[in-house]
Amino acid sequence: MSSIHAEQSANNLRKIRENKPLIHNITNYVVMNYTANVLLAMGASPVMAHAAKEVEEMVSFAGSLVLNIGTLSDPWIDSMLLAGRKAASQNTPIILDPVGSGATTLRTTSAKKILKECGASILRGNSSEILSLGTDISTTKGVDATHSVAETADTAAGLARELTTTIAITGPVDMITDGSRVVRVENGHPMMPYVTGTGCSATAVIGAFAAVEHDMVAAAAGGLAFLGLAGERAGSVANGPGSFMIALLDALYAITPEDLQKGSKIMEE
Amino acid sequence: MSSIHAEQSANNLRKIRENKPLIHNITNYVVMNYTANVLLAMGASPVMAHAAKEVEEMVSFAGSLVLNIGTLSDPWIDSMLLAGRKAASQNTPIILDPVGSGATTLRTTSAKKILKECGASILRGNSSEILSLGTDISTTKGVDATHSVAETADTAAGLARELTTTIAITGPVDMITDGSRVVRVENGHPMMPYVTGTGCSATAVIGAFAAVEHDMVAAAAGGLAFLGLAGERAGSVANGPGSFMIALLDALYAITPEDLQKGSKIMEE
Amino acid sequence: MSSIHAEQSANNLRKIRENKPLIHNITNYVVMNYTANVLLAMGASPVMAHAAKEVEEMVSFAGSLVLNIGTLSDPWIDSMLLAGRKAASQNTPIILDPVGSGATTLRTTSAKKILKECGASILRGNSSEILSLGTDISTTKGVDATHSVAETADTAAGLARELTTTIAITGPVDMITDGSRVVRVENGHPMMPYVTGTGCSATAVIGAFAAVEHDMVAAAAGGLAFLGLAGERAGSVANGPGSFMIALLDALYAITPEDLQKGSKIMEE
Repeated sequence: MSSIHAEQSANNLRKIRENKPLIHNITNYVVMNYTANVLLAMGASPVMAHAAKEVEEMVSFAGSLVLNIGTLSDPWIDSMLLAGRKAASQNTPIILDPVGSGATTLRTTSAKKILKECGASILRGNSSEILSLGTDISTTKGVDATHSVAETADTAAGLARELTTTIAITGPVDMITDGSRVVRVENGHPMMPYVTGTGCSATAVIGAFAAVEHDMVAAAAGGLAFLGLAGERAGSVANGPGSFMIALLDALYAITPEDLQKGSKIMEE
Repeated sequence: MSSIHAEQSANNLRKIRENKPLIHNITNYVVMNYTANVLLAMGASPVMAHAAKEVEEMVSFAGSLVLNIGTLSDPWIDSMLLAGRKAASQNTPIILDPVGSGATTLRTTSAKKILKECGASILRGNSSEILSLGTDISTTKGVDATHSVAETADTAAGLARELTTTIAITGPVDMITDGSRVVRVENGHPMMPYVTGTGCSATAVIGAFAAVEHDMVAAAAGGLAFLGLAGERAGSVANGPGSFMIALLDALYAITPEDLQKGSKIMEE
Repeated sequence: MSSIHAEQSANNLRKIRENKPLIHNITNYVVMNYTANVLLAMGASPVMAHAAKEVEEMVSFAGSLVLNIGTLSDPWIDSMLLAGRKAASQNTPIILDPVGSGATTLRTTSAKKILKECGASILRGNSSEILSLGTDISTTKGVDATHSVAETADTAAGLARELTTTIAITGPVDMITDGSRVVRVENGHPMMPYVTGTGCSATAVIGAFAAVEHDMVAAAAGGLAFLGLAGERAGSVANGPGSFMIALLDALYAITPEDLQKGSKIMEE
């Protein structure tokens, strides 16, 4: 365990609770409500706005921009590009969640277009989604992962260098890399995949950390440790996925920076 | 405490449970599910419909129309105007929630356009959102309030007269005014801002009361007292925002007209 | 009780848990999150995708297609038709939920258009919605049912023959017919109508069963018995609609094939 990362994550959670950074989400219909609740519960200020006419204005006073292609269509892609270019011009962190990339051509090409035109400070997905964005063509089955985290570590590091981004691949163990450093996060709970939007929530939580932290590897690690720790707490009281998703929100609200410092399992390699 | 308001609110809740008025919502993606559940739990009949091709037909048999600009875009504004004009022509109450008005030009101008072209029976928002609709230009940070309720009382009364509407400004204490009367509602719980859509839910609950009550000040006060009382009950059993939002639905279902009459804290000045 | 149906339903639940079929949903904004959680909790793999540019590709590897017109607009109808035609060409089961059909012209004509151009393996709705699709013109009040199940049995059987589909009319007792066979399902709980999307969830659960079962009457009966049994379990622990909807997800996760075999109340007439 890296006590440096644990302390940094705790400090970042403290900053989020104090500053309540505005997180601008252009995300999918399925998880909008849960994502907003996750961000509110942890102490951030979510806003969802997708109209081409307002996204540039909205992102101009946001602490970070979360782009999620889970239920995309042309007008939403256009708005993501508008908001992304504006965010990039202001050095506002962009967190991209390429939901289902690799499953359909529209998703893969849209994610690649966003990466090319706006860049991403952090790219968060499962291994299949991340792999689909590299030159090593692969396919995914819907939005589920079919590659192990282990076999994608090298590819991810290469891809991070190629795209000049920090990549966070989530799974039973999360892996974060900016192409040179590699960090693993072991917090989490096996019930998380049974609730829709836990992956998308991870992206949003990372967005809140990125709004208060310049080191994107630390932001991603802190966010994933925090959400994973909340998952561990939720799992200890839940009877199933329904009570789990509710207990997760309670935990995100209840976990203190001190709890996070003690409970985070972040390892730098 | 005004026992007249308490009794009137209790009677209105009784009417809602008996008549199950259809509440037509054109609202934002984030809160659609929760708003529908709030209305169902309290005994009303929600319908969500936003297509230009059907909103006039749908609103023609609704008890009230709830318009919420939380995730607006051009086609949705057009539909809100279509539905709003039809509702106005039938004297069907329109309850407008100008989410994020003041934060972006699109939201402010859209809310103003709806007010101008359709009017609103009740305008429900936080103080920043409401203030943004007056001539005293102000800005909001996302959808959060940055003005106190107290400093906006006079402005709200003036704005209510200017717009010929009833204004409900919600916060730790809610203030309702039609320009001459001023009513305050003290029900509520500090956990409410940690759940997304509690403000939007307030607007929808007011919509249900407005469907059975001609006095818009009484409808707004009754709705806010009822939701606030449910919040108090939920807060007494919740462990955090997740269990709070679930307990809130349970409370909206369980609270009887008699409970509301006893528990409502409505004060006319 | 039919022990054959009970055993078949149990076997189908076992197959769903083993194969995790991908269920492609083009559904309404209100229930997207809950529907996804229902499908995940029971062991299926939901995907929501509505863009014209990807629906044919997405449905090509789905086990079934669920179409739900609850918040429809022109682009969504176009996508439903595209996906539906592709599914039909591949003999992928299509489950249609005509939410609010009969309430507005747009909904009635859209549901009829989907039925005509794509066909439906199973049509699931309340009695008013189903009746609106026959030649016997009727009207519905929003999305609520105003006809009893009993008086629609003959009409449903005739309509099933006319449309070459299996019809599932849900209510206190569910009725399923393919025009010759008639099956009733008595599982369920009176709290279900107080949660938005339980009807839509029924359609999605049926979609999961249809992905592993060729007999559409058995798929519909198994899905409705399973959801109804989960409702019974949830009702035994819930304090109101909020805790009910959460306990329902827990139950969908916890119920084993053996539980379903014992608890299902399916009767063939």
